[in-house]
Amino acid sequence: MSSLAGEEIMLSQLLRAESIAVVGATPKEGKIGRMVLENLIRAGFKGRIYPVNPRYSEILGLKSYPSLTSIPGKVDIAVVAIPADMVPSVIDDAVAKDVGVVVVLSAGFSEAGRADLEEEIVRRARKGNVRIIGPNCAGISVPGIGLHASFEELFKPGSVALIGQSGAYLTALAELLSSRGVGVSFYASLGNRADVGEEELVEILVDHDDTRVIALYVEGLREGQGAKLLKVAKKVVVSKPIVVHKAGWSSAGARAALSHTGSLAGSYEVYKAAFKQAGLILVDDMDLMADVVEFLAWNNTLPRGIPVILTNSGGHGVTIADHLESLGVKVPPIPKELRDKVSKLLPPHAGLSNPIDMLAEGTPEKYGEILRLLLEDANVGSIIVIHNPPPMINALEVAKVIVNVWDEYNRSKPLISFFTGFNVGEAVRYLRDNNVPVALTHRGCAKAVASIYEYAEVIGRKTLTL
Amino acid sequence: MSSLAGEEIMLSQLLRAESIAVVGATPKEGKIGRMVLENLIRAGFKGRIYPVNPRYSEILGLKSYPSLTSIPGKVDIAVVAIPADMVPSVIDDAVAKDVGVVVVLSAGFSEAGRADLEEEIVRRARKGNVRIIGPNCAGISVPGIGLHASFEELFKPGSVALIGQSGAYLTALAELLSSRGVGVSFYASLGNRADVGEEELVEILVDHDDTRVIALYVEGLREGQGAKLLKVAKKVVVSKPIVVHKAGWSSAGARAALSHTGSLAGSYEVYKAAFKQAGLILVDDMDLMADVVEFLAWNNTLPRGIPVILTNSGGHGVTIADHLESLGVKVPPIPKELRDKVSKLLPPHAGLSNPIDMLAEGTPEKYGEILRLLLEDANVGSIIVIHNPPPMINALEVAKVIVNVWDEYNRSKPLISFFTGFNVGEAVRYLRDNNVPVALTHRGCAKAVASIYEYAEVIGRKTLTL
Repeated sequence: MSSLAGEEIMLSQLLRAESIAVVGATPKEGKIGRMVLENLIRAGFKGRIYPVNPRYSEILGLKSYPSLTSIPGKVDIAVVAIPADMVPSVIDDAVAKDVGVVVVLSAGFSEAGRADLEEEIVRRARKGNVRIIGPNCAGISVPGIGLHASFEELFKPGSVALIGQSGAYLTALAELLSSRGVGVSFYASLGNRADVGEEELVEILVDHDDTRVIALYVEGLREGQGAKLLKVAKKVVVSKPIVVHKAGWSSAGARAALSHTGSLAGSYEVYKAAFKQAGLILVDDMDLMADVVEFLAWNNTLPRGIPVILTNSGGHGVTIADHLESLGVKVPPIPKELRDKVSKLLPPHAGLSNPIDMLAEGTPEKYGEILRLLLEDANVGSIIVIHNPPPMINALEVAKVIVNVWDEYNRSKPLISFFTGFNVGEAVRYLRDNNVPVALTHRGCAKAVASIYEYAEVIGRKTLTL
Repeated sequence: MSSLAGEEIMLSQLLRAESIAVVGATPKEGKIGRMVLENLIRAGFKGRIYPVNPRYSEILGLKSYPSLTSIPGKVDIAVVAIPADMVPSVIDDAVAKDVGVVVVLSAGFSEAGRADLEEEIVRRARKGNVRIIGPNCAGISVPGIGLHASFEELFKPGSVALIGQSGAYLTALAELLSSRGVGVSFYASLGNRADVGEEELVEILVDHDDTRVIALYVEGLREGQGAKLLKVAKKVVVSKPIVVHKAGWSSAGARAALSHTGSLAGSYEVYKAAFKQAGLILVDDMDLMADVVEFLAWNNTLPRGIPVILTNSGGHGVTIADHLESLGVKVPPIPKELRDKVSKLLPPHAGLSNPIDMLAEGTPEKYGEILRLLLEDANVGSIIVIHNPPPMINALEVAKVIVNVWDEYNRSKPLISFFTGFNVGEAVRYLRDNNVPVALTHRGCAKAVASIYEYAEVIGRKTLTL
């Protein structure tokens, strides 16, 4: 086994790969080997793409090679979509050709009772410097360089890295983030995780400019892997927040995780304590993951003061305050000086504590005026803007005011919005088009805000920018 | 104060009203009085509509009356949208005219420091048999009879009743339910809740055929109201499940609830224990409320056996199993006999415990075959179907199979679906068009299933139908 430094260098090739081979490429419709090749072409990969299939001399307009070793130039990555029994010899070729990383999409290894075959491919890879992602995985994607070595749909390029064993979970999350306009900077489905582990990919992302936030979906960890992950995490979280969904924490979930990828789930309480100590942000569901990473991706600052909720609807304000406090974030009344200023803008029956409840008086203009006060007041650390349009208010106008005022103050404080009710679709799209986070649920909104306070504590307020 | 029996009779007029007056009706665009009148006309109310405004002889094509007392026929309901100071004299007129229920939309009462004015309108109503909903509320709606006495958008008629103080919360929930195709049977925003309380409306719904499920949003209860609500609930839950979101359980939330509607929130733990004992189903967020009531509205049976998760994706199955167990619902392995039957349909590396993980072998046909086995096996009490389409599977085809097979077995067991990932929009619409519940989140899916087990226990399995 090569040195850690050597491994790092090889794995980081994933982020700046200049050549990729598709072993099992085929022109046949509906085949994985065709989908992957098509995706690489459609994603606009700038490097060389080498189809590998001895039956064809050309596939989808690209010259096809009979084997990895017959390719003339260097091959940074090989993605493999052929029957499991044929994979070991491909690994031999990869060693001979000095390929950096082999991504094995093929199923039929330990998850199918063939642990022997899985051990065999790792054993052969170790004869050289070849690292394996997979097998039984959904592939990798680096949208910033047009590298989409997966049969999954293309992702919108963005700033969130997604890492985990379950391709389906990561892809569903990528879809959520793509549809919300946040987008993906890196995607790696590890499948059975025979070789490359989560912690190694987290480590290479520390220098990946496109990545601002790392989302980890963990079902279980190998012997000794937890300690490695925590060590890497402590280093990485200083510059990039890492959000973790640790699944399989119930007995049924643990049993399912075991049957799914052969991972033992372990005690959730143990994981939770250790993860928190290392500065990881924990979530227990995919929608919360989406709300949290969107918020962290689009906010450049950390809070230095209390969270303030601005709403035109009591019920939504109360519910978000409930969840914030249950997550350990205090929502104290706003200071008297600020309260006096706000009170001049609203009628006497408005809520002037925290939440600030504007009632039906919540016109776009009033939203703007109070947002300015909140952005100016040094006691205010973060802002939650809730809007549930009454019939006479146009939600889009409120959305425009939020974007304008937040920009006017150079987005100097973290802000998240929660729009709900009839006719808010256009407003939500406008907010997302302008990189303003819009939470999906009250709880997700609270969890996002709680996460940034947690993160601010973790990095010891060493810096004011993420 | 009239007898309880008398009150009940009057309030139940809401559900079969034949005449409604709009006090403060106006042809002026953007005014509440016009919106309410327009909504009544647009909703297709079959009864008589009487605009009341001395300045006009006709409004929107309807004859206008100078006052309630000048209306020739009977008036079941009066909805009021005039300045607060003018409301007391309208209550006098309502007493004189023997109007059943007056819905006061006007603000400017206790929430604006005018508790005196609020007490005054109740005092005057007590001189006769008039009941007041509001003031400072968003109105009422009974979509089944085209009665939409509110400035909020029309709701899709359906089977869920929504009751609570916060108009915005209820309307946002109504929008969620309308967009999901479930729809609304009854809506009452109580605002400051000067007179009619939640428990009285819950009580009249026991005989409302359109209502299958009752959704309650509670911020706080008046002195003595809790006991009344629990008494009514015990009676009603036998035929209709009641789902409650009790908000204002944090200190910030309680403070906000107090400023919002003058309600004291009280200790959540006390509420929680009492609510559970009375058979109420508790949720702590609006999206969970939507997932739970959709599931209860579209399922006609109670579970008599274990929940079984059928998935084509390990990660989603694990996550839902986690949440089910955290909610107290065990997800045991499926019995050996069933396991043997399922195993014949799937390759050896599929997950055969619970979740049943079909992997990429999850074709529409396989979904159908295994669903049939689950619907036939007496040990299976409820079914959760997860689908995250891989590129070669059309999610819509899977949706069609679910509808067909569930119908084939007369929907004899509770079923809920969770579709996620790329290109599932059409499938989700198809499922909802066919009254198949589709959960929004993993947690919501688990909460819905947990709720029906909880409910089954509550009603002591006296009956197999809701």
